[in-house]
Amino acid sequence: MIMQKLIKNLVQKNSSKIVLVVLDGLGGVPVDGKTELEAAVTPNLDSLARESACGLHIPVDMGITPGSGPGHFALFGYDPVECQIGRGILEALGLRLDVKNTDIAVRCNYATIRDGLIVDRRAGRIPTDQSRKITERLQAEIPAIDNVELIFAPGMEHRFAVLLRFPEPLDPDAAAVDDTDPQLEGKAPLSPAPRSKNAERVAGVAKKLIKTVHEVLKNEKQANYILMRGFSVKPGLPTFQEAFGLKALAIATYPMYGGLAKLVGMDTPVVSGSVADEIDFLRKNYADYDFFFLHVKKVDSYGEDGNFAEKAARISEFDELLPRILDLKPDVLIITGDHSTPALMKSHSWHPVPVLLKSPYVLGRLCSSFSERECHKGELGLFRTVKLMPLALAHAKRLKKFGA
Amino acid sequence: MIMQKLIKNLVQKNSSKIVLVVLDGLGGVPVDGKTELEAAVTPNLDSLARESACGLHIPVDMGITPGSGPGHFALFGYDPVECQIGRGILEALGLRLDVKNTDIAVRCNYATIRDGLIVDRRAGRIPTDQSRKITERLQAEIPAIDNVELIFAPGMEHRFAVLLRFPEPLDPDAAAVDDTDPQLEGKAPLSPAPRSKNAERVAGVAKKLIKTVHEVLKNEKQANYILMRGFSVKPGLPTFQEAFGLKALAIATYPMYGGLAKLVGMDTPVVSGSVADEIDFLRKNYADYDFFFLHVKKVDSYGEDGNFAEKAARISEFDELLPRILDLKPDVLIITGDHSTPALMKSHSWHPVPVLLKSPYVLGRLCSSFSERECHKGELGLFRTVKLMPLALAHAKRLKKFGA
Repeated sequence: MIMQKLIKNLVQKNSSKIVLVVLDGLGGVPVDGKTELEAAVTPNLDSLARESACGLHIPVDMGITPGSGPGHFALFGYDPVECQIGRGILEALGLRLDVKNTDIAVRCNYATIRDGLIVDRRAGRIPTDQSRKITERLQAEIPAIDNVELIFAPGMEHRFAVLLRFPEPLDPDAAAVDDTDPQLEGKAPLSPAPRSKNAERVAGVAKKLIKTVHEVLKNEKQANYILMRGFSVKPGLPTFQEAFGLKALAIATYPMYGGLAKLVGMDTPVVSGSVADEIDFLRKNYADYDFFFLHVKKVDSYGEDGNFAEKAARISEFDELLPRILDLKPDVLIITGDHSTPALMKSHSWHPVPVLLKSPYVLGRLCSSFSERECHKGELGLFRTVKLMPLALAHAKRLKKFGA
Repeated sequence: MIMQKLIKNLVQKNSSKIVLVVLDGLGGVPVDGKTELEAAVTPNLDSLARESACGLHIPVDMGITPGSGPGHFALFGYDPVECQIGRGILEALGLRLDVKNTDIAVRCNYATIRDGLIVDRRAGRIPTDQSRKITERLQAEIPAIDNVELIFAPGMEHRFAVLLRFPEPLDPDAAAVDDTDPQLEGKAPLSPAPRSKNAERVAGVAKKLIKTVHEVLKNEKQANYILMRGFSVKPGLPTFQEAFGLKALAIATYPMYGGLAKLVGMDTPVVSGSVADEIDFLRKNYADYDFFFLHVKKVDSYGEDGNFAEKAARISEFDELLPRILDLKPDVLIITGDHSTPALMKSHSWHPVPVLLKSPYVLGRLCSSFSERECHKGELGLFRTVKLMPLALAHAKRLKKFGA
C-alpha cells in the first residue's frame, strides 16, 4: 500500500509503449532433465533473453501457489494478498458478465432435491444447452427480488452465475454470506446465513431467490434447486489509469482474463482466434494505447493436462510469432507468465516464473537463453511479481525521481 | 502474521514425510580460501546439492546474528522478531524443565554477599556437584512462596534456574521485572523491580525468594546469595500441528534444542548418543510422524571453539551417515543450519546459511556442490529463514492454491 501510493506520486506520462505478454502457466520443472521452456524451440526468445534483463518472480510468496486472480493482479502491480478476489466475481468475469460496484456475484449449481434432501449436487451434470434454457427461463421469470435486479449467466453443464444488482452502494462486508452447498449428498441444503450485520440484506435476497427458483423449477426432474457459493463483491481497486497513468488494452480470448483486466480498468474488447490473431489485434490497436496486456492461454491448459510436449509446442509456437511483436519496437517488452504450471504436477505451482524485460536500459548478457535456470543468473534476481509494474514504468521513463 | 494466517488457511494433510536436518552453526567464512563446508569431505551432500533446490537463508535480517532461539524459531516457520523468547525460558529448557503457561522462568547465579555488597558475582564458580547440593536444599526448604510453587534446576557451576509456578494464568507482561545483578562487584544487588502494574505480583514473589534464600544459605561461605536475571514467560505460539497440520518429532541430544521444539508442540523424547544414534532414532520412529527435526550439535560447538578442522570433520562425519537418511526416501529432505558459526570468528554470525531442499519438484543442476558459494547460484536465492517451512509444505503438496 505504501509502495503503491509512492509510485502513484512518481508517475509521469510520456509517449512510450509497454507490452506485457503473459504466457499463462509458463514456468515448469524438469522432466528428463528439461523444463517445458527448455524443451521448446525458442531461438527468438533466447536471443531476446541474451539482450534483456532477466529474472524470476514470485506471485504471492515462497511456497504459495497462486490462482489466476492473484497471479494476474500481481502482474498488474496490485498486491495479491491485499487485493483478494472472490470466487463469485471470478466466475462472473469468466461468463463475461459486466460486474458493477453495486453487485454481489455468486457462483451457482443446479442440484436435485427430494423431500428436502439433496440427492444430486450437480443435477446429473445436465447438458449445457438444457441448462442454458433453464437459466434463460429463470431470467425471464425472476427479473428482480425486492428491488434487487438479477442477472443470470449460463455456464457449462450444471453451472451458472448470478449477479444481485442492488440499487444502492454496498458495505465492504455485505457479501459475508455462507455457502449453501453442504458438499455432501443426502443432506439438506444449508441456509445462506449472514456472517455480519451488513450482510443481512444480501442473505435475505438469496433466501428468497432460492425459494422462488424452487417454485419455478419444481417440475424439473433434475435441475429443481440451486446451490449458491462464493458470494462476493468487486474489489475496490484504483484503475490502471489512476495507479500508473496508463491507458491499457487487454487482449485475451478467454473471458476470465479480460475480466480480471477489466477490474483494473483496462479496455477489454472481445477478441477471438489464435495467438496470431491476438498479435494482429495488438498491431491494429497499437497507436491507441500506452500499455498492452496480451494473454496466451494454451500454455497453461496443456500444463494442467500434464501434456509436457504440447505445453512446450505452444511455447515454440509463440516464439515463431514473436518477431511480429518485436517489429513494433515497444519501449518496454516483458514476456513472462502469471504463475508456473509444471506438466509434471498437472496444476498451478508455487515455482518462481521466468521473466525477460527488453529495453535499452538493461545490463543484459547474463543469460544465454530464456529458461528457468538461465533466468536465475539474470539481473532482476528473484523478486515479488508486484514489483514488475514499477520496473516496467521505470524502463519506460514513466517514473520520476523519488526524493530530492 | 498475515502470511502465517494465510498459510494456516491453505494447509492440507496428506501422508508425505518431511525431514529437516539442522547442522547447528553450519555456515562459515573462508580460512585459507575455503569455508568449513568447502574443506569438509562431502561427496553425498555434493551429489544431493546437484539435484536439489539450493540457496541461502537469513535467520533474522541482514547483519543480525541470531541466538539459538531465533535461529530455530525461524527454521520452524515462526517469525523470530515477532516470537521472542526470554533468557529465563531458554535456560529452563536447557535444564530440561517442563515449562508451563503459568510459569515465570528465571536464570540465577549463586553469589557471595558481605555487609550488603556483592563480593563475588559467581560465588567463586563453585563446583557443579557442590552447587547441585545447595540447589537441592533450596528445593527442599523453599517449595513455595505465597501459593506460588518453586521448581529449582541445578546447572553448571554457579548457575541454576528457577520456575515460579503461579496457580492462575499470567498477563503477557507479568514477567516485566528488572534483573537484580548489578554486573559489578562491590555494589549492592538490585531490587527485582516491576516495570508494569501486571508484574508487581511476580516482583513481590522474587523479592521474598531472594530474602528467604539468603536466610537458608547465610552460613555458606561462597554461595550465600542469589542474583536473578531474564524473568520471562513461555511465548504463546500456535503449535506445529495448529500452524502446519504436522505431527512432529524432535531428535536432539542437547536439551535446549528439544526444549525449543517442545515450545512449538513437537514431541521431544530424550535422545542420547552420537549422530548415528540420532539417525537410528529417526529410522525407528519414521512411521509415526509427518515431520522430523534432527539436530546435530557438534558442528556449532567446534565453530565456537575456533576449531576449523574439527568443525569440518563433523560435517564430513555427517556426510558419511547421510545415505541412512536418504534410504528413507522422505518426500522432502532439507539440510541446513540454524545460523552460521565461522571458526574464524569463534561465535555465531549473521552470515546467510546454506540450504538444500530435495524433492521431485525442483529445477536442480544449478550448484555443483554443497557450499556457501555454490548455494548462491541456487534456485532458492537469498531468503528469510521463516519462508523455509512454507517451501517445505509446498514441496510436500501440503498447501492448497491461494485464490481462484
